Amino acid sequence: MQFHLNGFQVGDPEVRPAAPTNAATNDVVDVLVIGNGPAGSVLTAQLAEFPGVSTRFIERREAPMMKGQADGIACRTVEMFNAFGLAEKLTREAYWITETVFWGPDGKGGITRTGRVPDTEEGLSEFPHVIVNQARLQQILVDRMRTAPTRLEPEFGMEVTGVEIPEDPNEPVRVTVRQAGLPASAPDLVIRARYVVGCDGARSVVRKALGLSLKGDAQNHAWGVLDVLAETDFPDIRHKATIRSDNGGVGIIPREGGYLTRLYVDLGEMEPGDQSLRRRADADFIVATAQKAFAPYTFEVKEIPWWSMYEVGQRITDRFDDVPDDARGTRAPRVFIAGDACHTHSAKAGQGMNVSMQDAFNLGWKLAAVLEGRAPASLLDTYNAERQPVAQALIDFDRYFAKAMSGLTPDTANEDGTPNLAGVQAAFQQAGRFTAGVATHYPPSLLIGEDTHQKLANGYPIGFRFHSAPVVRLADTKRMHLGHVHEADGRWRLYAFADAEPAASPTSRLRALCDFLTDDAASPVRRYTPAGADVDAVLDVRGIFQQGHRDFDAGDLPRLLLPVKGRLGLRDYEKAFVPDLDGGQDIFDLREIDREQGALVVVRPDQYVAHVLPLDAYDELATFFARFLTPAS
Amino acid sequence: MQFHLNGFQVGDPEVRPAAPTNAATNDVVDVLVIGNGPAGSVLTAQLAEFPGVSTRFIERREAPMMKGQADGIACRTVEMFNAFGLAEKLTREAYWITETVFWGPDGKGGITRTGRVPDTEEGLSEFPHVIVNQARLQQILVDRMRTAPTRLEPEFGMEVTGVEIPEDPNEPVRVTVRQAGLPASAPDLVIRARYVVGCDGARSVVRKALGLSLKGDAQNHAWGVLDVLAETDFPDIRHKATIRSDNGGVGIIPREGGYLTRLYVDLGEMEPGDQSLRRRADADFIVATAQKAFAPYTFEVKEIPWWSMYEVGQRITDRFDDVPDDARGTRAPRVFIAGDACHTHSAKAGQGMNVSMQDAFNLGWKLAAVLEGRAPASLLDTYNAERQPVAQALIDFDRYFAKAMSGLTPDTANEDGTPNLAGVQAAFQQAGRFTAGVATHYPPSLLIGEDTHQKLANGYPIGFRFHSAPVVRLADTKRMHLGHVHEADGRWRLYAFADAEPAASPTSRLRALCDFLTDDAASPVRRYTPAGADVDAVLDVRGIFQQGHRDFDAGDLPRLLLPVKGRLGLRDYEKAFVPDLDGGQDIFDLREIDREQGALVVVRPDQYVAHVLPLDAYDELATFFARFLTPAS
Repeated sequence: MQFHLNGFQVGDPEVRPAAPTNAATNDVVDVLVIGNGPAGSVLTAQLAEFPGVSTRFIERREAPMMKGQADGIACRTVEMFNAFGLAEKLTREAYWITETVFWGPDGKGGITRTGRVPDTEEGLSEFPHVIVNQARLQQILVDRMRTAPTRLEPEFGMEVTGVEIPEDPNEPVRVTVRQAGLPASAPDLVIRARYVVGCDGARSVVRKALGLSLKGDAQNHAWGVLDVLAETDFPDIRHKATIRSDNGGVGIIPREGGYLTRLYVDLGEMEPGDQSLRRRADADFIVATAQKAFAPYTFEVKEIPWWSMYEVGQRITDRFDDVPDDARGTRAPRVFIAGDACHTHSAKAGQGMNVSMQDAFNLGWKLAAVLEGRAPASLLDTYNAERQPVAQALIDFDRYFAKAMSGLTPDTANEDGTPNLAGVQAAFQQAGRFTAGVATHYPPSLLIGEDTHQKLANGYPIGFRFHSAPVVRLADTKRMHLGHVHEADGRWRLYAFADAEPAASPTSRLRALCDFLTDDAASPVRRYTPAGADVDAVLDVRGIFQQGHRDFDAGDLPRLLLPVKGRLGLRDYEKAFVPDLDGGQDIFDLREIDREQGALVVVRPDQYVAHVLPLDAYDELATFFARFLTPAS
Repeated sequence: MQFHLNGFQVGDPEVRPAAPTNAATNDVVDVLVIGNGPAGSVLTAQLAEFPGVSTRFIERREAPMMKGQADGIACRTVEMFNAFGLAEKLTREAYWITETVFWGPDGKGGITRTGRVPDTEEGLSEFPHVIVNQARLQQILVDRMRTAPTRLEPEFGMEVTGVEIPEDPNEPVRVTVRQAGLPASAPDLVIRARYVVGCDGARSVVRKALGLSLKGDAQNHAWGVLDVLAETDFPDIRHKATIRSDNGGVGIIPREGGYLTRLYVDLGEMEPGDQSLRRRADADFIVATAQKAFAPYTFEVKEIPWWSMYEVGQRITDRFDDVPDDARGTRAPRVFIAGDACHTHSAKAGQGMNVSMQDAFNLGWKLAAVLEGRAPASLLDTYNAERQPVAQALIDFDRYFAKAMSGLTPDTANEDGTPNLAGVQAAFQQAGRFTAGVATHYPPSLLIGEDTHQKLANGYPIGFRFHSAPVVRLADTKRMHLGHVHEADGRWRLYAFADAEPAASPTSRLRALCDFLTDDAASPVRRYTPAGADVDAVLDVRGIFQQGHRDFDAGDLPRLLLPVKGRLGLRDYEKAFVPDLDGGQDIFDLREIDREQGALVVVRPDQYVAHVLPLDAYDELATFFARFLTPAS
């Protein structure tokens, strides 16, 4: 954490100094975010960081959610929470998934443990896969936006009744809102917004206003879901576990706090349109069904804080914004949908909430860049282009995974139709990267470069998220994770991994790159940084050297890596890193950096690797940023 | 973190459910804590955990402190903060000390780096040595007490004007308080308290009321201390560093947030009673003096949020409570002093604040145990008996250290009087354990056993703090630190390290111990746990097995290690641990546990090892607790 740059600041440094915000102009707010779910909370937490963006955040419910709903937090999501400074808080109160345990029939009418696998492949992320109540997750994000420079607050009891998108692209979108607690005769409130984002769930009013619908197969397979406090002699109740017994199927997700358990209970096939199961399947019925699967182990329920029933159904819309395919490129999108509003998933794969939050993280920095004048509005087309295929890929995976968990794919079922438990287990292991949230890949596009120079940094594949690794900060010898310098502040990061020349050498390519970025008229740093702003305000350059920390001083650094910043003109000592040689973890080996040539890894504000370039590819670097950044005036 | 035991609880689990508190009886409060400094804040945070104890917390200042004062947090102090659930928060915003760098004369009128040493010996603690503003440290503790079951708040603007201790031990102590903002004619408030703790600093009113004074040598060596935002080309400004140049001496402590620096500037010898330096030594003078020592490096000050001047002076009182030596044992103490009220230290050794907080941690659980009826009042004699010698040992160390840092001890000065830099550096290294706060040792006493069976667990020396080590929690395979189960909740921990027999074996000595503790009339668990309370309410037994986690199930555990607890009768799955074999760190090796016999390590509520016993030493165990615990009625 860095603070005190513009003078000593008393009190909690997590409470950032309030900034003069860009008040709504002519009653037009920059962004209206609809829905305090996972997507809306991440989006608003992101927008709250930008004093230049005015945001309103409205929610239909009259109070914050308190229990139930989703609970699985993928490693990738924890990485994103870390960018918001929230990983410690989240992981402290969460349950940590370490292993998944499989139980099957024991041939005597009971069940027996058939296998156990590590939940997450070693080294996939520096963060664990955790479980925490969706309500808590949202609250943590709301607490964050309250302490952001803009001091944003959600507004509850605000139900959207209509969305009107004028033909004229200069006219704001008009959203009508019914406010709870007012007499029926009270007129609806009209909010005018330059951009509207519907994070309003599977029954999204915004989606309907766009004339879009969720499409997909009804699976007609019913599941009961319960949060329970229970007493049991089942030995794996504190492990993520799957029971497939002759008497039914149950998925177990241990929950935060040491006592609570989430159960997913297989209620079997439903005829399309059959409502009888839904009527019959109350909490007692679901518990009784689960108890049969647990037998001969006891499972005595003491309290059920929350339960629900759902049918597995993966559905998706064709697009995530208001621009039809035939109009793409002729005008920029103004209305977006994110999360469940545009894609729904099987709860059992534990993906829906995570993908929804990544939608928001993808969109947030783009909206801020456009609204603060750093990028043209066409940047916003990339939201739909990037996220719709990701959601579709997830649907495909979800469908496979749901079938695999039910023993309905060739590799997970024996010829006689019984589950092939080894196959189920293998499917689980294969799915690990998907489950961890690190499988997302963006192909080459406006924002993603070609892989011409990928071999310079094979451990940072272009289009995937930046995979953190341990380093030592040069100036204070602190062991830390390189990826943790990446805060959710809308800035691009340029990680310059040094060539073989030492830092102080006049022939160092890294030094030459820094000189180019500092001095050359073609430098993207010069081109896109507004006058008077800190040198790292738009493009934040970090240097990683091959030498150990005892071999050179901060004083040997190029100026760009020891920049003078802020109102007082203080030096920022947190730009330069060296490998953690004492810890035996050399980032150049871990991430396969070319030691002779070095590499420049360009990372987007949402932590995805946008490009890998040679340190001296000045033209390619300048050309790349010219595609989507607006020169500072 | 464990929560939901007595039913699902919505919201932030750090905000514990408010408990019906033990209101002051007949206007007599149980404990009055005077002074919102480090000692008072820790003490009150501790007392706030106990609904059976009524506490008031008053402070002379009219608002919380905002800047300046102490800043060094020893590893041991971070361990204690972890027991309060605050280590993540503290370490997140703090500066981490990794190395100390030494600079000396370069022979050409300037300075050169003469050495660098790791700040903390490898493996000394799982936590770092960190630096954070005392004001923040106090605020973090106050925030914690606000969310404790008793919802305690400090009361500001309350200046103690008198303390009256009646002869009759059944009469409460009377403390008169002048409240800020009232007219001069307003009568003083009288607070009546069963116990009074003066954490009111070096000019303690409570100490004076006890007729005690701080004694010690005046050192007559003056130091200036500054918190500065500065621009410098000195390369180690973000390392803890010591400069001894021909032109003066400066100690550098980098501060939280990446930009702030604390400087200790040597202002030289003062004649006793000389006030001229004090008049002359303003911030500009101190900066100018520092700049000479930095030369040829520049040091340009941009902002000075805080500065002060002090003379090194270590002073201490003869005792820390109201019972004179000749009355000891005839009556229990009722008034205590802690922290600077009874001992002051050289700021440069970074010890005063840490020792003060450990005073409070030592006293807090004892007051709660007596007030909640778990121990006789004579327990309170051990506070003075344990803490006065610790403070004296620290004074001795401080004096040595201050002289060593000034090159005034034989091993740190050359024959010609110039500093022996190698000697200074060696003194620094030797002092590491003291600086880390882990050197504190309590000799055998009422609360500390003899070392008869020490060899069963050589890595847990009796009388020292329990040194955490990595383990895996059996029920959910979570890698964690064994010491982190120890919360600041007033409970004793019994860590039972298994003998060679597997957990399920009927001849396991650990199993036999658990059976004794569960069933035998002589069991301390049965004897001291109140009827209706959870089995671990007073003595919390944890089992550590030698087998890997794949070799047995939670179901194989003795009942005591899988206890049923709470209103709902839920199982607690967090009592059993196995070595972190996958991580290559076997706690039995790390802490030198006898693998054949096992060992029982008894740990006090303040995390000090009270005893090491064989697993089958039932009589010795029962006898030990009978010395200071009151059987439950």
